[in-house]
Amino acid sequence: MVSLPAMIERAARLNPAGAATTYAGRSCSWTDLAGRMARLAGALRGFGLCGGERIGILALNSDRYYELLFAIPWAGFCVVPLNTRWALPENNYAVEDSGTRILLFDDAFVEQAGHLFYAVEELAVAIFMGEGECPQWALSYEELIASTDPVAASTRGGDDMAGIFYTGGTTGFPKGVMQSHRAIWASAMGALPDFQMNRDSVYLHVAPMFHMADFAGGMGVTLCGGRNVILQSFDPARVFDTFSSEQVTHVLLVPAMIKLLLDYPGAADADMSSLQCIIYGASPMPAASLQRCLATWPTVSLVQAYGQTELAPVATTLSAQAHREGGDKLKSAGRPTAVTDIRIVGEDGRDCAVGCSGEIAARGPHAMMGYWNKPEETAAALREGWVFTGDAGYLDEDGYLFIVDRVKDMVVTGGENVFTTEVENAVISHEAVRDVAVIGIPHAEWGEAVHAIVILHPGSAVTETELIGHCREHIAGYKLPRSFTFREEPLPLSGAGKVLKTELRKPFWEGMERRVN
Amino acid sequence: MVSLPAMIERAARLNPAGAATTYAGRSCSWTDLAGRMARLAGALRGFGLCGGERIGILALNSDRYYELLFAIPWAGFCVVPLNTRWALPENNYAVEDSGTRILLFDDAFVEQAGHLFYAVEELAVAIFMGEGECPQWALSYEELIASTDPVAASTRGGDDMAGIFYTGGTTGFPKGVMQSHRAIWASAMGALPDFQMNRDSVYLHVAPMFHMADFAGGMGVTLCGGRNVILQSFDPARVFDTFSSEQVTHVLLVPAMIKLLLDYPGAADADMSSLQCIIYGASPMPAASLQRCLATWPTVSLVQAYGQTELAPVATTLSAQAHREGGDKLKSAGRPTAVTDIRIVGEDGRDCAVGCSGEIAARGPHAMMGYWNKPEETAAALREGWVFTGDAGYLDEDGYLFIVDRVKDMVVTGGENVFTTEVENAVISHEAVRDVAVIGIPHAEWGEAVHAIVILHPGSAVTETELIGHCREHIAGYKLPRSFTFREEPLPLSGAGKVLKTELRKPFWEGMERRVN
Repeated sequence: MVSLPAMIERAARLNPAGAATTYAGRSCSWTDLAGRMARLAGALRGFGLCGGERIGILALNSDRYYELLFAIPWAGFCVVPLNTRWALPENNYAVEDSGTRILLFDDAFVEQAGHLFYAVEELAVAIFMGEGECPQWALSYEELIASTDPVAASTRGGDDMAGIFYTGGTTGFPKGVMQSHRAIWASAMGALPDFQMNRDSVYLHVAPMFHMADFAGGMGVTLCGGRNVILQSFDPARVFDTFSSEQVTHVLLVPAMIKLLLDYPGAADADMSSLQCIIYGASPMPAASLQRCLATWPTVSLVQAYGQTELAPVATTLSAQAHREGGDKLKSAGRPTAVTDIRIVGEDGRDCAVGCSGEIAARGPHAMMGYWNKPEETAAALREGWVFTGDAGYLDEDGYLFIVDRVKDMVVTGGENVFTTEVENAVISHEAVRDVAVIGIPHAEWGEAVHAIVILHPGSAVTETELIGHCREHIAGYKLPRSFTFREEPLPLSGAGKVLKTELRKPFWEGMERRVN
Repeated sequence: MVSLPAMIERAARLNPAGAATTYAGRSCSWTDLAGRMARLAGALRGFGLCGGERIGILALNSDRYYELLFAIPWAGFCVVPLNTRWALPENNYAVEDSGTRILLFDDAFVEQAGHLFYAVEELAVAIFMGEGECPQWALSYEELIASTDPVAASTRGGDDMAGIFYTGGTTGFPKGVMQSHRAIWASAMGALPDFQMNRDSVYLHVAPMFHMADFAGGMGVTLCGGRNVILQSFDPARVFDTFSSEQVTHVLLVPAMIKLLLDYPGAADADMSSLQCIIYGASPMPAASLQRCLATWPTVSLVQAYGQTELAPVATTLSAQAHREGGDKLKSAGRPTAVTDIRIVGEDGRDCAVGCSGEIAARGPHAMMGYWNKPEETAAALREGWVFTGDAGYLDEDGYLFIVDRVKDMVVTGGENVFTTEVENAVISHEAVRDVAVIGIPHAEWGEAVHAIVILHPGSAVTETELIGHCREHIAGYKLPRSFTFREEPLPLSGAGKVLKTELRKPFWEGMERRVN
């Protein structure tokens, strides 16, 4: 049966002595990694949880993060990777909503984990997976591994839930996307023909590992029994150093990271000789960056992956060949992978003709099981097996998908989705605010930036700094408005009473193409 | 859910106007093809069969053959592709064993189908799918399509059986390999990264379509919504013409076909400009052919696929890149695809170390469900999810699989497996024969040829021609001995009383490398 632990057992059988992970100067072979996972799984089973219960991770990237993504399912539990950029209330919500029973955290999140551990009653165990000193209220990751016998992998797999992955929610609350073992496997299988990985591949995890975008590459290299090289976080100099020192062949980057690499002094002289493929996705890539990339690193293939957490995550790919050929297809998100079926659905619920825009719906073995605890949102997003993506687009006559707008009201900034409702809820909870509309405005580095258009109560006054400080208590830093417009006239409304955000966006985007995939 | 009809529906949605099949000067779009399948499925449902019952095909390659491979599962039934090289008794066995209720046949098999139709009681309906006149005792394929309304695809799929695929049997009887929808899909998914097909690909079916080797390429191009070009049978001149006229990008050939193409006058001047990839497999490729291929058609990628019907059928691939790099890896069968897990099992049942030979066992979502009606053979070949291939080999330290011998006593001649027991049973049933051993001896064109070593009863006499005539009544032409050795001394036996075929093979193979994959 297809399962996350089976992927590791297979890699350990096919490449026993090969390095599985490299992080902070230490490496671990596939055999040793499988052994550590089996012991860690044994330790996790020792806490008396039932099969399928949830275990959370709140940590920066590390080799242990990779271990946990498989060790938790190995033990028979579901993984809940928490967003490292979220504020305490957001992760508190995710932990409570998912019914997380054990929380693993690293040095960067001792404080937040401590708050969660004492605040959430169901959270029974905290395990410190960092490098520094283990807090008194937590157990030590390495001591657990050292003191536990290995256990056989759980029989959970296939269509069983492997994890809950939180994304921003249209209603102002994060939604937990339930993904099965098979879905995660199928997305990776679908992407493999374009990623072109094999056992000799070395994949660099530098995008955040809690985010499914990094799964796209990480699961691929795992299927091939290649090597995972992991950086704790993104830093251009270290990324270039690691390309060279670890002979990285594949990396997944969000466009904002690519821009920072291109802008780095000496980018053109960097040793990119081992690098075969940059996979990019999660937010729109400015055409200028794409051209600079092709010109600066001509030996490196570019592959675009488009998808979302609900699709585990890859739905379409724009191949290296299409990038080399250039032309109009470069503006597309590529073609459906071999596991993905795509429909373009008009407002009447019928399929749109070639070239006509509608909501993009995707189906396949990588479609989510639904949103955890959210039957209404699930019913809206998942209809007869089709995931309605909230993106608007069309297919051209050659089968390429062009994304033209977002149906969901969302800003994509630096690869993160920000649902405007969440930001609007935070802003309007300030006593001085009467009404607010949040939109995305152009930003050279992040694609879009969060912008708030605010109407104050008559006679009230508040500064931008005060508003930001207020919002910071409720939502993650990356969701905070970067700029404000204060106005007195009411927001423009449609006949149905909906705020006309297209009108509000217009002055900011004049003369620019808003690329939204 | 993954299913054969869903593959067609997806291709029709993603590439509605694109050509799906081209055969004998006629083409059919994906939309039209899906419509024909839906009507044909409706007709098949009209005969009162229960879900999962079997429908056989006895025909040369055609666009209708391709249609049936999907229309039969569309209707909710299982497909039984019959071996076009088999003699009447062998196909009679397959039809009876599988409980086939409807038989489709073409012009080339009117006589055999007629015999089967009247001999097998369970066979309720015969449908003529050829180009000539429909026999009176059969229904017309095109009339059925024209007179029936389309039906929605069956909900069968996933782990449900999609078909029964007959292979030679070790015990002298053919074995029906049960394959699920998911298994056929998974094998194709595993091969796709190396086949490098996409929606623009044009795949030539020229290997027999009843054989799963052709599935490897055909299912891949179906997943991509590309184009199937179909030749009724193999003819070098027509293959070269078709490469050029249909702008073929991919073809699967058995090594014997490749040799015939290389030997064809003007092979070096043929228009191969569209051809991207020759996939080869099903029998050992002589090193000389491989080198000639690379030298004669330097722009064409070579990809080897190794597997068997029990693996639906691909287990490992030797990539185009590995072919270009050359060296020792060219002697291997490549590496496991991303869906395949491989073990090398020693005689003690334990895993062999890297570099040590044992029986090759393979596991994955493409493993067979078992042998139809043969629980003992199933228990022997399928153990805890592992398919024991009957091939002996080892994995090198880079994860390449080298096949060194066959555990099953089998001759592979021109891409067909001949179990020696079947031939021995046929020979020994002649009254003059006292003992016989059948082995494979080197053959320039077919890799191996079937050779019989015969001991006659004292005082008996028989000619080679008489023996061949006798065998022809029992077994297919390709299984007949091509040559004989008559001897008087008893066959060499092992301590356990087994005929030592290695001893018998030795004089024929002296100074030659016996490549057996």
